[in-house]
Amino acid sequence: MIKAPLSALLLLVAMTSTLGKYIPKSGKRIPQTLSRGWGDQLIWAQTYEEALYWSRSKNKPLMVIFHLEDCPHSQAMKKAFSENNEIQRTLDEDFIVLNLVYETTDKHLSPDGQYVPRLIFVDPSMTVRADITGRYANRMYAYETSDTKLLLSNMEKAKKLLKSEL
Amino acid sequence: MIKAPLSALLLLVAMTSTLGKYIPKSGKRIPQTLSRGWGDQLIWAQTYEEALYWSRSKNKPLMVIFHLEDCPHSQAMKKAFSENNEIQRTLDEDFIVLNLVYETTDKHLSPDGQYVPRLIFVDPSMTVRADITGRYANRMYAYETSDTKLLLSNMEKAKKLLKSEL
Repeated sequence: MIKAPLSALLLLVAMTSTLGKYIPKSGKRIPQTLSRGWGDQLIWAQTYEEALYWSRSKNKPLMVIFHLEDCPHSQAMKKAFSENNEIQRTLDEDFIVLNLVYETTDKHLSPDGQYVPRLIFVDPSMTVRADITGRYANRMYAYETSDTKLLLSNMEKAKKLLKSEL
Repeated sequence: MIKAPLSALLLLVAMTSTLGKYIPKSGKRIPQTLSRGWGDQLIWAQTYEEALYWSRSKNKPLMVIFHLEDCPHSQAMKKAFSENNEIQRTLDEDFIVLNLVYETTDKHLSPDGQYVPRLIFVDPSMTVRADITGRYANRMYAYETSDTKLLLSNMEKAKKLLKSEL
């Protein structure tokens, strides 16, 4: 005798808990990730300030990726980058990572201009490693999908930290 | 006759696709969200620069939330905030939102000091609304879980945009 009212009550509770959550008029959205597709298993800093703090305190080099969601070169690089286990493992173990879809106010992060995709390394001493460049003279910090080996060798360079002058 | 080899092949493909992805030694992680728990259905800016851009271009006020993951006051406010449908709906429809666990270099975002949780409104004219305050004289931009009505009325104030001097 008690079964029907109880299941009705449970149904009501279940409905209420679903109804209770805010859902946009346009339909439920997939929550945005901080990785933006560049590696869901990595721990991403949100801002340049946060990234610099972690780089200094963990004494690990920082990789900053500038990209745009609707840029085909960014999309292609993101796919190659996120699917390359050696890149992902090395970043996870030895780097602080930040990906940005907006420029920061720090001009040091655009040594030869603002373009995407652009990968800049920063030493824990807070020195931008303008010396670690890709293959292209006119866009020195750009990498193509065919440049993953060069990128890995540049990551090894970035891991050799600059000597502090202190 | 063909069934067994085919399913074996499918299994192999499935295993390869799982084995192929980078998984940290410490185990698979849940991808980080940009909401950090303040509302998974909202569209969050990543940085202050991005938030200002969207505020100006969409002519919507910006709410900046400063918080810390391991601060009990931030956690309590986050729960009340993310579960309040009126707050969530109003933010989704009428605001640009940004939550930060690190301070920016812009001193205007800390009119009476850096503390968490701290909620600051910014007008699309890029003016920090230091006039929109909470209940506490010593921490004017702090809100407690019991202050959601005040917060909603402050959101209404922020929606009345400042007149541009141009």
